[in-house]
Amino acid sequence: MRTIGVVTSGGDASGMNAAIRAIVRIAHSKNIGVYGFERGWDGLITSSLRPLSPRSVSGIIQLGGTILYTSRSSQFMKKEGIRKAAQNLAQDNIDGLVVIGGNGSFKGALELSSETSTKIVGVPASIDNDVFGTDETIGFDTAVNTAVDEIDKIRDTAISHERIFIVEVMGRTRGFLALTTGITVGAEIILVPEVRFGKEEIIRRLKESEAKGKKSAIIVAAEGIGDTRELAREIERKMGAEVRLSIVGYAQRGGSPTARSRLLANLFADEALELLTKDRGNRIVGLEKGKVTSMELETSCNKEKPLDMHLLKLANVLAT
Amino acid sequence: MRTIGVVTSGGDASGMNAAIRAIVRIAHSKNIGVYGFERGWDGLITSSLRPLSPRSVSGIIQLGGTILYTSRSSQFMKKEGIRKAAQNLAQDNIDGLVVIGGNGSFKGALELSSETSTKIVGVPASIDNDVFGTDETIGFDTAVNTAVDEIDKIRDTAISHERIFIVEVMGRTRGFLALTTGITVGAEIILVPEVRFGKEEIIRRLKESEAKGKKSAIIVAAEGIGDTRELAREIERKMGAEVRLSIVGYAQRGGSPTARSRLLANLFADEALELLTKDRGNRIVGLEKGKVTSMELETSCNKEKPLDMHLLKLANVLAT
Amino acid sequence: MRTIGVVTSGGDASGMNAAIRAIVRIAHSKNIGVYGFERGWDGLITSSLRPLSPRSVSGIIQLGGTILYTSRSSQFMKKEGIRKAAQNLAQDNIDGLVVIGGNGSFKGALELSSETSTKIVGVPASIDNDVFGTDETIGFDTAVNTAVDEIDKIRDTAISHERIFIVEVMGRTRGFLALTTGITVGAEIILVPEVRFGKEEIIRRLKESEAKGKKSAIIVAAEGIGDTRELAREIERKMGAEVRLSIVGYAQRGGSPTARSRLLANLFADEALELLTKDRGNRIVGLEKGKVTSMELETSCNKEKPLDMHLLKLANVLAT
Amino acid sequence: MRTIGVVTSGGDASGMNAAIRAIVRIAHSKNIGVYGFERGWDGLITSSLRPLSPRSVSGIIQLGGTILYTSRSSQFMKKEGIRKAAQNLAQDNIDGLVVIGGNGSFKGALELSSETSTKIVGVPASIDNDVFGTDETIGFDTAVNTAVDEIDKIRDTAISHERIFIVEVMGRTRGFLALTTGITVGAEIILVPEVRFGKEEIIRRLKESEAKGKKSAIIVAAEGIGDTRELAREIERKMGAEVRLSIVGYAQRGGSPTARSRLLANLFADEALELLTKDRGNRIVGLEKGKVTSMELETSCNKEKPLDMHLLKLANVLAT
Repeated sequence: MRTIGVVTSGGDASGMNAAIRAIVRIAHSKNIGVYGFERGWDGLITSSLRPLSPRSVSGIIQLGGTILYTSRSSQFMKKEGIRKAAQNLAQDNIDGLVVIGGNGSFKGALELSSETSTKIVGVPASIDNDVFGTDETIGFDTAVNTAVDEIDKIRDTAISHERIFIVEVMGRTRGFLALTTGITVGAEIILVPEVRFGKEEIIRRLKESEAKGKKSAIIVAAEGIGDTRELAREIERKMGAEVRLSIVGYAQRGGSPTARSRLLANLFADEALELLTKDRGNRIVGLEKGKVTSMELETSCNKEKPLDMHLLKLANVLAT
Repeated sequence: MRTIGVVTSGGDASGMNAAIRAIVRIAHSKNIGVYGFERGWDGLITSSLRPLSPRSVSGIIQLGGTILYTSRSSQFMKKEGIRKAAQNLAQDNIDGLVVIGGNGSFKGALELSSETSTKIVGVPASIDNDVFGTDETIGFDTAVNTAVDEIDKIRDTAISHERIFIVEVMGRTRGFLALTTGITVGAEIILVPEVRFGKEEIIRRLKESEAKGKKSAIIVAAEGIGDTRELAREIERKMGAEVRLSIVGYAQRGGSPTARSRLLANLFADEALELLTKDRGNRIVGLEKGKVTSMELETSCNKEKPLDMHLLKLANVLAT
Repeated sequence: MRTIGVVTSGGDASGMNAAIRAIVRIAHSKNIGVYGFERGWDGLITSSLRPLSPRSVSGIIQLGGTILYTSRSSQFMKKEGIRKAAQNLAQDNIDGLVVIGGNGSFKGALELSSETSTKIVGVPASIDNDVFGTDETIGFDTAVNTAVDEIDKIRDTAISHERIFIVEVMGRTRGFLALTTGITVGAEIILVPEVRFGKEEIIRRLKESEAKGKKSAIIVAAEGIGDTRELAREIERKMGAEVRLSIVGYAQRGGSPTARSRLLANLFADEALELLTKDRGNRIVGLEKGKVTSMELETSCNKEKPLDMHLLKLANVLAT
Repeated sequence: MRTIGVVTSGGDASGMNAAIRAIVRIAHSKNIGVYGFERGWDGLITSSLRPLSPRSVSGIIQLGGTILYTSRSSQFMKKEGIRKAAQNLAQDNIDGLVVIGGNGSFKGALELSSETSTKIVGVPASIDNDVFGTDETIGFDTAVNTAVDEIDKIRDTAISHERIFIVEVMGRTRGFLALTTGITVGAEIILVPEVRFGKEEIIRRLKESEAKGKKSAIIVAAEGIGDTRELAREIERKMGAEVRLSIVGYAQRGGSPTARSRLLANLFADEALELLTKDRGNRIVGLEKGKVTSMELETSCNKEKPLDMHLLKLANVLAT
């Protein structure tokens, strides 16, 4: 392993820069050169790359976003795009490739792996935390804290106006972000796509909460549950009270990474280089049972990470 | 002046609690007792009040929201409600009343003033900053900083994805919040209700910006300009590029007040008590020409605070 | 188990309130009543306690500090104090006692356990993270992030002035806080009490760093390493350059807990009640191998938690 | 005016980068070229400068520190250094020079002005806020908010342990930072160098506060008042209670500037360019009576800005 590439792909997550920095510096300590491909898979298809040195990744550990840019490539989805990327990896003499991204990026990486001899290692970075094979992704803790900070502020208004608020958070089709955010802000109700929750049940819970003396309520809803605007209107109608909707948006992706997102970035980079120096590829690194480890890329792509149902039940108990 | 009341009314703004604390403690130092009316005007109509002592307002200077709760009273809008409030002020022996709120609350206060002999003083607190008679309202600086923090994070994503973002901020029908936020985040374009800005002009400016080498752009839009969702779609169509919309919501109202919002709260409370001890009422306090001063309540209600057009022009120059 | 007590003891850590709230509400769901002892062990000795209900712990999940107050009791260190506490537990009919605190508090709890039949469960909360039996304590993640935020700011000045900064963080006799903070801020050097690091070695490393083109440096030092003021002076002398010292102080204890500290508080409380309802005592709960579990109180007290030496080595590699 | 230089000098303050960006972009809009001198006055003495374009100052509005670096030049203090700087300004064809800094930097600028025909304009940036001619300096609001955030956290611990805390903030020989910080955190006592405050008086006030039922206290002390460590020990002795000292250090200089510090940076830059395009020099810009204006550099250097004694008295009333 003399030269590796690194690419950030899909939606950005805070800590991607910390991961890039760590990969470059750890590789450097092992006498491995690093090139950065720009704009996600597009950079592989167009061979748009630049050398990265320990100095060129200075001062980025605390920055959100990705200095390599990212994209959701439409071209890469086609056989032709993948082949072109594989050719470029060969031509550019890239022995190993670190793919920093989430679920979708790893599916692309899996397809690419069948066309190239370059060893591919995935480093999970996603605010959705929906990667099988790791308890936590880079950027998840940052996204949760951003949402929590915002909802703490919204609660001031909820209490002052004695109102019900629905706060929609990101997470695509999954409820990881909503669940951890909901339990840590002390939400009265948490709505995730993994669990059906009828409107009657929501109303029943809100009335119960009201009967206990609570005059305001926060409902944290994953974007994956459907139309929150419509939900707000329905609750308003049935409760006979004003309901406000607030959407915590793209800010969840950016901002300076939390210590934990930075730490994961460092640890995952370390494991990725460990694999590559042993010529092992087609794996993703991850955090399992409190330890950094790795798993087959294919297994990660084919399995679905379960939501912690015990945590959801605990959240309900805590909302009393 | 032996006993005064204090009430928070309308939309909450961060720093209202700091103002309540300051009013109670300054009044105490002048041997004036303070009662807090709860839930805005409703508290006056139902005579729902509680005594406030220096100790009972301990530990609230840093809290968002209002310990007195607030509401947008529908009853108060009617003659009957106002009369009831006036009667209660007399019965409760309230010699002076401090109304902490914005434009709408002051209009209510003006109506009330014609029915009561209680001296009324308005303390401007609003995230909209649209009160004539003060350069700045309590809570404005906090709201701006919350929006700025969020847009700083969004810019990470905008840059990484090389995308155009529209960020909608609050401000009701006015552009104060959008303008100050826009110029301090370095927005490429700022859209305020006070200035017509055709879609062609937006497109022209975005293309100009692109031509200069900028690959991402932030448009800060006041909620008062109309449908930002529709605007995003139109720009998307005309630029042939993805445009994302993010709405900075209710978080702008809450959160711990900034130092400046707390300072204004203290200074305004000081001036309010100064007026009341001199038996002067029907005034609002405010910051003008860098000094805390006061003006007729009626003047404040009848005049419209102008937006700083020079600042808007400067923002355009800075966006180059 | 019909009635339990809860006490916060020793140095405060952010998330203690979240833990109190969770204990009260989970207990309530199991029909167990909860009393809060005030001011740490002193509250047991003086039987100073108050009932806690789900409503009385409302709105505290996001608050730093502890609503039960805390202290480092000198009386409790004596046999007599412990006996008095045991007597009070019996008289007050406290079947179980949850002790929220760190290492020192658990040693006190162990002594108390031999004098009482009340089942004692420890919930680790400490910014020092030095409790054997858990990978992480409540408040540690918050303390780390507070230090990281502050050092990110200090780095602005370090870079602008091209200076060397020593930043001292807390952690008592251990280096957990310094290590995690150091690696996540990208410190050039991390000094922990667990590893001897001669002054010559520090100078050598700083010169090496300088030779690589780095014009500023951040040294993160645990308070346990000794006199950082003296160290600053020595480095100044030997490097012939200005060295600044900054001490990140008590702010590390307080502030709103991070999502992770709140989550741990909830999970630990859940496990504590799980143990108590099974009549199991003399244990501490903890996070091990990514799962919440428990261990003998005595084992936790008698063993020393090792510092992660691999992480320290990785930090050095990353500082290149 | 065809070419101007810009230099940041003295201690850094957050918002210096926003000022650099604004100067470059406003100058560009007036067809004026800009060079940045590096490392404060040293850059003028060694003619170390680089051209700055609207693109080269992209993405810096939100960054602490200064991209031009800064220093406290010892060479500049000598006649020879000043002459060399003046010669270089002539040789480099610099028609105007914007000096971003505080009091000390302006004294240097005044000396330089007598040796050069280059028009010099000072832009006040300092966390100390001690520049005569402006109510507020760039970076002051940021420093205050950083201190306030930290003290809000410390108060959690102060309350939980029922302890007295002394918190030392920066401000050099003046009390502006301590006063605004103290009143906005609700400090029980504020100590500034401008007002003698005997130890007996402090003790008297603390006992009074204790008698009112306050069990903890925050004393905010300016660094200029002398040895706070010694003060803590004395209070400890006389109150018979633990007193903790926390020093809010260099973090006050850095960090992302608040909206207000950014706004001031933009407005001051606008006024500076306004002066330079009219060929007016030897002035500093500033905020007076709520408006951006300017004054003779010499006047600013020779007069001492008074501390707002009314504010200090108000702070005492509010501490009741």
